[in-house]
Amino acid sequence: MALTRRTFLSRIAQAGGLGAAYVSMRALGVIPAASLEAETIKGDPATGRGVKVVILGGGISGLVAAYELRALGYHCTVLEALSRPGGRNWTIRGGDEVAFTDGTTQRCSFDAGHYQNVGPARLPSNHRTMLGYCRKLGIPLEVEVNTSRSTRLQNDAVNGGKPIVQRQAMNDTRGHVAELLEKALRSGELDQELSKEDVERMLAFLKSYGPLTKDGRYVGSERAGYATDPGAGEDDGLLSKPLSMHTLLDGHFWNDLLAEESYAWQATMFQPVGGMDSIPHAFARELGKTVQYNSVVTRLEKMDHGVRATYTQKGHEKTLEADYCFTSMPLHLLRKIPNNLSAPYKKVIDECDYDGYCKIAWESRRFWEQDENIYGGLEYVEEGLSPVWLPSADFFTDRGVLLSGYGAAKGTPLDRMSLPEKFEASRASVEKLHPGHGKELEKPVYIGWHLVPHLEGSWINSYGPHQPQREDSDAVGTRRGGDHANAGYRTLLQPDGSVYFIGDYVSYLVGWQEGAALSSLRAIRMLNERIAKNA
Amino acid sequence: MALTRRTFLSRIAQAGGLGAAYVSMRALGVIPAASLEAETIKGDPATGRGVKVVILGGGISGLVAAYELRALGYHCTVLEALSRPGGRNWTIRGGDEVAFTDGTTQRCSFDAGHYQNVGPARLPSNHRTMLGYCRKLGIPLEVEVNTSRSTRLQNDAVNGGKPIVQRQAMNDTRGHVAELLEKALRSGELDQELSKEDVERMLAFLKSYGPLTKDGRYVGSERAGYATDPGAGEDDGLLSKPLSMHTLLDGHFWNDLLAEESYAWQATMFQPVGGMDSIPHAFARELGKTVQYNSVVTRLEKMDHGVRATYTQKGHEKTLEADYCFTSMPLHLLRKIPNNLSAPYKKVIDECDYDGYCKIAWESRRFWEQDENIYGGLEYVEEGLSPVWLPSADFFTDRGVLLSGYGAAKGTPLDRMSLPEKFEASRASVEKLHPGHGKELEKPVYIGWHLVPHLEGSWINSYGPHQPQREDSDAVGTRRGGDHANAGYRTLLQPDGSVYFIGDYVSYLVGWQEGAALSSLRAIRMLNERIAKNA
Repeated sequence: MALTRRTFLSRIAQAGGLGAAYVSMRALGVIPAASLEAETIKGDPATGRGVKVVILGGGISGLVAAYELRALGYHCTVLEALSRPGGRNWTIRGGDEVAFTDGTTQRCSFDAGHYQNVGPARLPSNHRTMLGYCRKLGIPLEVEVNTSRSTRLQNDAVNGGKPIVQRQAMNDTRGHVAELLEKALRSGELDQELSKEDVERMLAFLKSYGPLTKDGRYVGSERAGYATDPGAGEDDGLLSKPLSMHTLLDGHFWNDLLAEESYAWQATMFQPVGGMDSIPHAFARELGKTVQYNSVVTRLEKMDHGVRATYTQKGHEKTLEADYCFTSMPLHLLRKIPNNLSAPYKKVIDECDYDGYCKIAWESRRFWEQDENIYGGLEYVEEGLSPVWLPSADFFTDRGVLLSGYGAAKGTPLDRMSLPEKFEASRASVEKLHPGHGKELEKPVYIGWHLVPHLEGSWINSYGPHQPQREDSDAVGTRRGGDHANAGYRTLLQPDGSVYFIGDYVSYLVGWQEGAALSSLRAIRMLNERIAKNA
Repeated sequence: MALTRRTFLSRIAQAGGLGAAYVSMRALGVIPAASLEAETIKGDPATGRGVKVVILGGGISGLVAAYELRALGYHCTVLEALSRPGGRNWTIRGGDEVAFTDGTTQRCSFDAGHYQNVGPARLPSNHRTMLGYCRKLGIPLEVEVNTSRSTRLQNDAVNGGKPIVQRQAMNDTRGHVAELLEKALRSGELDQELSKEDVERMLAFLKSYGPLTKDGRYVGSERAGYATDPGAGEDDGLLSKPLSMHTLLDGHFWNDLLAEESYAWQATMFQPVGGMDSIPHAFARELGKTVQYNSVVTRLEKMDHGVRATYTQKGHEKTLEADYCFTSMPLHLLRKIPNNLSAPYKKVIDECDYDGYCKIAWESRRFWEQDENIYGGLEYVEEGLSPVWLPSADFFTDRGVLLSGYGAAKGTPLDRMSLPEKFEASRASVEKLHPGHGKELEKPVYIGWHLVPHLEGSWINSYGPHQPQREDSDAVGTRRGGDHANAGYRTLLQPDGSVYFIGDYVSYLVGWQEGAALSSLRAIRMLNERIAKNA
């Protein structure tokens, strides 16, 4: 049941990753000197004149590829299996049908105006390519509150199972750490580690870091919050009683508390107003008939010159020949269709593995805002589906859509549950975090990405035989999915003849739209160079 | 020049505050049981029938008082000295004139649509009374990004004076603290402090908290950011080189880094779309002619029954008699007009002291967004005017208004500078944090609150002879201003006959609109009870 309960401790303990990454570092200033403006392809609009490219898949990588290739004069066609653009960038609204490969169907019944981004749901500040496209395409963005100090944590074994506010866990933890280190410094045990002067400075620093009393104790702090808020008149406020370090260790909240420090999850984050799918829809509007929907690729052949894609569209089999192919098809689906890719590529395609994450969404009265003063952010339970993710859209309105359960589904016990059982498990997490409110949840929708036709997965998990030291961390954020040290990853970076691989799986930003977009820009640069060389 | 360089360390060292606060605590669960909905006055709309109340001051406390009293059937008049509602809730836009008591005038030349909230500029999630009014009055709110991991810190003495990104200072500090504590725990020095089992659990926790390598070293982390971001293909990203603890101690950034953990400053925070003054304007619309502008109170007399306020309006002296008076006049201005308040009240009014904070705002191209991927948040320089506060309004547009310098002005060297000198000091801070961009700043405006007519201060600083242990912290947030242990504070909590004191200075939330609103609700409750008793 512990869906997103990733063993962060064990990942760090397998610390080859971190150490190895650091060893390979070059010394650099902390502020990147390079301009941080969005990467774009600058080139002569005649670069691709007379060159045909077929793009397999109309997700972010395929749309970006088509958008940029067209600007360079290439003739493009995007073959998209679904009836909508975006691929995993999918926003669900009332009336939408959700049909899975196992025959299950659901009809979303959210009220008008409500939605859930069941694929990507946030844009980090550092994902400047995607932010750049939003700007260029006129997509209004709003802040996605990924972190709020008012959100909650819950562990059945701690505090009688009652939820704990993140501000308290966060600040009491730091307080105890500061107190313990202060004692150690005073004892002289660390005199070999630090100069005498730095010991003194550390002691002064810990006083504010904790904060600690004059005599070095952590006795709570207004940072950890109030049991009763300060107000007017006699209401001086009543600080929350600090949690002991022992209790905090029982709680084992570290993975969740530190999630906000993951590079890709750090504030400031954004989301498109009205749903993430405004991005693919904006691209699709620009591209018009370049994108062919309901076009399921059934065969891919490299030819002496160029490529041939066979596909079915409205019951008809069609073929499309082009000089080059950009494929963003999930590799494990490419595996299933006849193709004549070369052996090294076939090896990756055969051996790779995809995760199947899920999201479970509910519409509800905004009890978390109206009754509990919580506005956005992620909450975590230690036993059960997690996290609970509160909406950043339409704050202060009456109702909203929250998510309860976002984690691995494929191959887990959750996967074997009936839909009603899944929903009750999801509701139970909300009830743990917000006692009495589980019953307010209505209109659930379950998206198991491994069951979504023509995608059948959330993101790549490995590029070949399992590498024990890989870091496939949700908590670490950036390095979600993939084991990039695998030789299979390297293989995909070069085209197989006329076939270029695009998509987040050809990047270090697996599961992020930014990775998808950058992979396409990279492939276009390679293609431009090749054409320039052949010219 | 160190305007907001508050000595957090020394405040904590004077730790009577924290210790004393804690000693007085009662044991309580961490989740408040009480409903967190906005407080409102519920009462019969005939409660105040036939009762006249004169309200001195049309800031938030006066407006809230009038709004709520009217709903209870009282007959109210608000006498406001300025030509606008809001008092310190003041938003400056292009065309606005800023005239100071020293004869200085400025004309704001911001482009249309730009503004700066020169008074309150953020609404914490926990200020449920103000959020409740925004909801009730239909004021649209948006997220105020008070914390961004991409914002910067700068100290001339560190890193060659080059700015440091907050994500790095924050995460490298925690890494070193974890490494040192890990060493101390391994040494056995802390075995008396923790059980053997908890020592083991602490060691495991510190691995993720740091994060630390398997052998307990902090060698950097993706949390601290990248010198080169990870991307597609071969771009695996280059981690920033960690700052040493020695360098971090030199930097002395703690006060600034921990500001985001101040209870009142914690995410999620909000701001009204288009300017904070939409709050007073919404109240004023509701109140209509109840609010009399340009009405400068010149005398306040308690009578045998009721009160008499004398005021000038458009050159005419007028008087208004009422059964009760609610006064929100700054006490040090009330000091200057004839009044017959009782001795204990006169004593507070004579002995209290007000701070005079300032803000300096500029319009500019959004170089911080467009060139540096920074979206909102506060930045700090150690030597010079600080903080630099980036706008949360209208992200991704071309130009915006930032603030450079928000701190004590009255009685500081800044106060004695000419306006151009002030502006150059302000520009210099931006140049330190964003080298090369200081020159992009245009159209500066300086607001020194001690110079604003009819206010002449930012917030109360003390209620009487200085109390050495007071916590007047910006960094601590909640307890800005005031020394509430002072007997003078207690005096103001009860009416002087028919005169009730309202305003943030009658609360523990000095300098916050929430304190002002709560003080008025409290006074109304007292008045209701009195009237019910007399009936």
